[in-house]
Amino acid sequence: MRNLTLLTDLYQLTMMNGYYEKNIHEDIVVFDMFFRKNACDGGYTIICGIEQLAEYINNLHFSDDDLDYLRSLNLFSEGFLNFLKDFKFTGDIYAVEEGTVMFPGEPIITVKAPLYQAQLIETALLTIVNFQSLIATKASRVCYAAQGDPVLEFGLRRAQGPDAGTYGARAAVIGGCAGTANVLAGKMFDIPVVGTHAHSWVQKFDTELEAFQAYADVYPDNCLLLIDTYNVLKSGLPNAIKVFDNLRAKGYEPNGIRIDSGDLQYLSNEVKKELEKAGYHNLKITASNDLDEYIISDLKSSGTAVNSWGVGTKLITSAEAPSLGGVYKLAGSYKDNELIPKIKVSEDPEKINNPGYKKVVRIFDKDNVAQADLIMLKDEAIDTTKPLTIFHPTYTWKKSTFEDYTVKELHKPLFIDGECKYEYKPINEIKAYVNSQLETFWDSYKRLTSPKKYKVDLSKGLWNLKTDLLASKKVF
Amino acid sequence: MRNLTLLTDLYQLTMMNGYYEKNIHEDIVVFDMFFRKNACDGGYTIICGIEQLAEYINNLHFSDDDLDYLRSLNLFSEGFLNFLKDFKFTGDIYAVEEGTVMFPGEPIITVKAPLYQAQLIETALLTIVNFQSLIATKASRVCYAAQGDPVLEFGLRRAQGPDAGTYGARAAVIGGCAGTANVLAGKMFDIPVVGTHAHSWVQKFDTELEAFQAYADVYPDNCLLLIDTYNVLKSGLPNAIKVFDNLRAKGYEPNGIRIDSGDLQYLSNEVKKELEKAGYHNLKITASNDLDEYIISDLKSSGTAVNSWGVGTKLITSAEAPSLGGVYKLAGSYKDNELIPKIKVSEDPEKINNPGYKKVVRIFDKDNVAQADLIMLKDEAIDTTKPLTIFHPTYTWKKSTFEDYTVKELHKPLFIDGECKYEYKPINEIKAYVNSQLETFWDSYKRLTSPKKYKVDLSKGLWNLKTDLLASKKVF
Repeated sequence: MRNLTLLTDLYQLTMMNGYYEKNIHEDIVVFDMFFRKNACDGGYTIICGIEQLAEYINNLHFSDDDLDYLRSLNLFSEGFLNFLKDFKFTGDIYAVEEGTVMFPGEPIITVKAPLYQAQLIETALLTIVNFQSLIATKASRVCYAAQGDPVLEFGLRRAQGPDAGTYGARAAVIGGCAGTANVLAGKMFDIPVVGTHAHSWVQKFDTELEAFQAYADVYPDNCLLLIDTYNVLKSGLPNAIKVFDNLRAKGYEPNGIRIDSGDLQYLSNEVKKELEKAGYHNLKITASNDLDEYIISDLKSSGTAVNSWGVGTKLITSAEAPSLGGVYKLAGSYKDNELIPKIKVSEDPEKINNPGYKKVVRIFDKDNVAQADLIMLKDEAIDTTKPLTIFHPTYTWKKSTFEDYTVKELHKPLFIDGECKYEYKPINEIKAYVNSQLETFWDSYKRLTSPKKYKVDLSKGLWNLKTDLLASKKVF
Repeated sequence: MRNLTLLTDLYQLTMMNGYYEKNIHEDIVVFDMFFRKNACDGGYTIICGIEQLAEYINNLHFSDDDLDYLRSLNLFSEGFLNFLKDFKFTGDIYAVEEGTVMFPGEPIITVKAPLYQAQLIETALLTIVNFQSLIATKASRVCYAAQGDPVLEFGLRRAQGPDAGTYGARAAVIGGCAGTANVLAGKMFDIPVVGTHAHSWVQKFDTELEAFQAYADVYPDNCLLLIDTYNVLKSGLPNAIKVFDNLRAKGYEPNGIRIDSGDLQYLSNEVKKELEKAGYHNLKITASNDLDEYIISDLKSSGTAVNSWGVGTKLITSAEAPSLGGVYKLAGSYKDNELIPKIKVSEDPEKINNPGYKKVVRIFDKDNVAQADLIMLKDEAIDTTKPLTIFHPTYTWKKSTFEDYTVKELHKPLFIDGECKYEYKPINEIKAYVNSQLETFWDSYKRLTSPKKYKVDLSKGLWNLKTDLLASKKVF
């Protein structure tokens, strides 16, 4: 495993050294990771990367090499560098489960740890969770547009480096993709890999027909042909049908075709018609070529015979919104075992964080439909035998009361006293968890554009704490 | 070093297996890597990642683990898997030097190798070079907008994974950034790292003044304070000036301030005024907060006292255009030691590749100003003692003739017979090479929007070959 201990911003280390010099580095603090806007400008965000976060924390250590490098920067005291030698994460981390559907403002991860530890991990925690959550959400949107057709992740060559390609493929499958073309991701995460041949295969042979026949010879059981190297309808399709006929004569059924250019609506429908005429029903008609949720949605609504989608660049980079803006903010600091809540004020009310040590609960009605989330202080409880009234944190007259309801706490221990509590789950299970959650939300939250805003309110205790703290601040 | 041998699309392996079964896997072929549109929709692209490409090729090998995994897919013959055991790249690769300024359609990298080898490396070659070239180009644009002010790369937390953050930081520095906040990138590539403190430092102390004083105590030589945790003008700046006064009294000069929110134009000018009133001239006034080349350019033209720029998310993801669409196309295949040129036709003329084994030359006038590039067949030569006439590949009546000119071949050997020829260069040298090249181009190519299109023509030999091949194709 790579040593990612130095995968951090320099200011984390200058601050750690400063805290060490001021002898407050062991103070216990609470940080929250949350985001202010959903990934892809959508109605929800699928949290992903918690597994890699756990691995990163478990593997934290400053090698001699790392320390030599830090020494060479002439910024740190020898005492501090020496102190780093025994660095080990000893705090508590609560986080939502891998694949949890979350919303803006909610603490996704809370870290309670000695100040210097909580500070070191900020950057990598964000890098890891921001990216995978972004791609899982993007994939979920693309799959939503595909209405149950398989979506295949094809983007490695345009990914932002090897990690983006591999962890992105993992996230894409968690978000709903049926498989990836990325072989390394297949090996690392035990996810289905897919792929047949490229245009270069067709070009390598003297004729397209020879190329197709050669492919069918090698893969008679799994013959899917790319038919747009020269001309889909005049050349690719007739040649494919000849080869499919040969296959059938030998007792094999072909798998399908792929089109990577041109008018996918017109071509797919013509191809389907011709295939059916030739006696081939239910073949895979795969489309690729710069697809995303919007193009797929358009093709679906205008009627297309495509029934399998290869999605590359725009999925693996989340091209229209290529980052999730997760942040990590100080929410409290312990003094003599008492938590002093911390708030970062801002002229922009959206940028004011929620103070204190917190948790999140999801409220379901009796039909298990998600109604709202409530951010609460960690020691607050809900008595579900009584009706529950929640209110909008700004327009407090907006209230909802639930009578027959259940609540689910979304945070699970990820580390307790530095001990990892992450329970590894196969990708299939995580993917099933994503699906089962999405079923509890109205479709309005899943719309690709202008989705309905899911309700996230603050508990009475948290609202009071925040309001009091803001009232006590002198400068705005 | 990580084993990235499986960092490839599955279809590369299914094709390799197919070629192996058809016993044509050792045929020597030529592939070109090129792109059709500049990174960031700009006027040029800085090629970056050639060093990591060389490392990747040098390190190619299928481990037992890799082979076991491939076997588990039930797609490959035992003969083929056995053959992969001894996989080693044995071909020739010509590529432009790290940091070369290039244009659409030009071969950036040409691979001449046995078919199975050339196919395996396609995906990772593209992943590595596409991403770093994208970020180097983005950084170059941001630095262009900053008009000589230092630009600092601050984007790790929003990068698309750890590799994107670290290799992105490398590319950003090559493209022109003065440094990065990413400590791991600093260690890996020996590039300057920068950083002071975050809002959380200020929040951790009881007052902003205490926080600033504590920071100044620890870093008296290098005191740069973040002044927007509460309120820049009413709190941050006056507190900073108090601390700067204390520093000066002890014989230290402060470094500067940073602002991470609000109206950067107004605030920076007010801050500068107040600092000067207090006797602090020439301090660093650093701005951050979702910057990119367009915002910096706007601030510059409307007048701002900011003289140092921290650029994060939008640089490290190249947010507006988060991929460079580099492709890798078959250009020829050898038969009995003779090259059979290959072309991929398309209804879209822009998608038709240039056939044959090629090179690129840049033509300079007598003042060393770049005039045009010419894509040529590898065995063509230019007699620079005679005038040179080039012509537009589509509008062939558009001609230019050069009399007093020099030419420079842009391709260098990267691998010859599988032997690596890459000469490692420190980042500083690569960065200087980028700058020296940019100086040879008119500013019109560097405009952020609607840049002038640089001339890239085909040699007579290549143009004839392409035209003849297209004329001989039967189906369009």
